[in-house]
Parts: sequence; structure tokens; C-alpha cells
Amino acid sequence: MDKVNLAEKFALFSEHFQQKLVGELNGQHVKLAKFQGPFIWHHHEVEDELFLVVHGRFRMEFRDRHVWVEEGEFLIVPHGVEHRPVADEEVHILLFEPASTVNTGGAGGERTVAPVAL
Amino acid sequence: MDKVNLAEKFALFSEHFQQKLVGELNGQHVKLAKFQGPFIWHHHEVEDELFLVVHGRFRMEFRDRHVWVEEGEFLIVPHGVEHRPVADEEVHILLFEPASTVNTGGAGGERTVAPVAL
Repeated sequence: MDKVNLAEKFALFSEHFQQKLVGELNGQHVKLAKFQGPFIWHHHEVEDELFLVVHGRFRMEFRDRHVWVEEGEFLIVPHGVEHRPVADEEVHILLFEPASTVNTGGAGGERTVAPVAL
Repeated sequence: MDKVNLAEKFALFSEHFQQKLVGELNGQHVKLAKFQGPFIWHHHEVEDELFLVVHGRFRMEFRDRHVWVEEGEFLIVPHGVEHRPVADEEVHILLFEPASTVNTGGAGGERTVAPVAL
């Protein structure tokens, strides 16, 4: 039951598109990630995902449109919806999603990583 | 799949210890609340709760200690643990918890409120 300071945790890593586990509750993970550049197109069969921007901004691309998500904003991507996050500059993200979620969803491949505890 | 701007949502209400629903995913609720003053002692039988401070600070009291939670910090309170949030000055909180969560847990009483969509 220790509190988590987001800025302190973000200072502990620099890799992009990795997932750092900072909390767990009700079968859900709270994870931090730094995005820079484009990720890959993917979707999640069963998991909805929440992206909260703590610092910076990024663009969530969908097949038919895109949404800019700014600092202090969040976006929920429902399961089944193809998406690709793209960050022109580094962005710091808090993720909230089921513990079962794989970062690349059903796409798999070399960019698949497991979350690592910070 | 619209994004949510936290500052814009907080500007829409002023009541304390109410819960405003701003997102739902995987059976979990994302809610906003403004706390000021002491809440009541309670616990949740099955639900863990996450409190993320978006603006200000508050003190989470436990029976044997307390934790100050500052802007940019979060605290997870596991189910079964008695707690009482107290804010000397108004604080803006983002809550993540199961949709089944009642704000007063097993304590019930006049301060029980259902979340309202913003």
C-alpha cells in the first residue's frame, strides 16, 4: 500500500514501447510506457485499453481516422478495434488494462514484450 | 471512442465526494471526484480502489497510519482495508475501480451516492 509517484517512476527508464508495471488491482494492470515513433497496427480480442497522457502528446490512429491525445487526456480503445499509437516526440503514458493484455494484441511479432515491474 | 480531457470534466461540477463517471472498460469504472474535508471510515469487501491525484493533495487515513498522496501520485487501497480519505483543501481525484464499487463500501449511510455520468 505504498503510493506511486508517476514522475519518479518515469525517470527510472528510457526505452520506448516497453511496459513497466506500477500497480495491480482487480485483475487489472497499471503500467507506464514511453512512446516515440510509430507502433504497429494491432487489436485486442477481449481487452479494452485506456491510455492516459501524463506528459507530451500522441496520435492514436484508427483505420478511418485518428485522435490526438494531449497531456491530461485519456482515450479508451475498445476490444476488437484496430489501432496504432504514433508519437512524433516522446510521450509518457499511463496504461490501464487487464493483466492478460499483450502489447501487440493479436498481431504478435518482434515488438511483443511482457510488462516488467518497476 | 472520444478522448476525455480531465480539466474540462472537473470544470463541470463542484460537489464534494460525488462520483462522476467518465469512462468504462473491462467492467471497471473511471470516475472523477472532488474531495474536501473528511469522508467516512469504510472498506470494500471485494473491490480494490485506485486514487490518482490530478490536482492538490489529500491524506488517506488507515487505522494504524496515514499516507499523503500528492499531485501526480496514486495509491491503491486493497479490498478489506479500512480507510478514510481526508482533504484539508479541495483535491481532484481520478478513481479506477470495478463498476460494482459503492463509495461508502460496507458502511453505507447518508453519504452513499451512485456515480453519475458527466
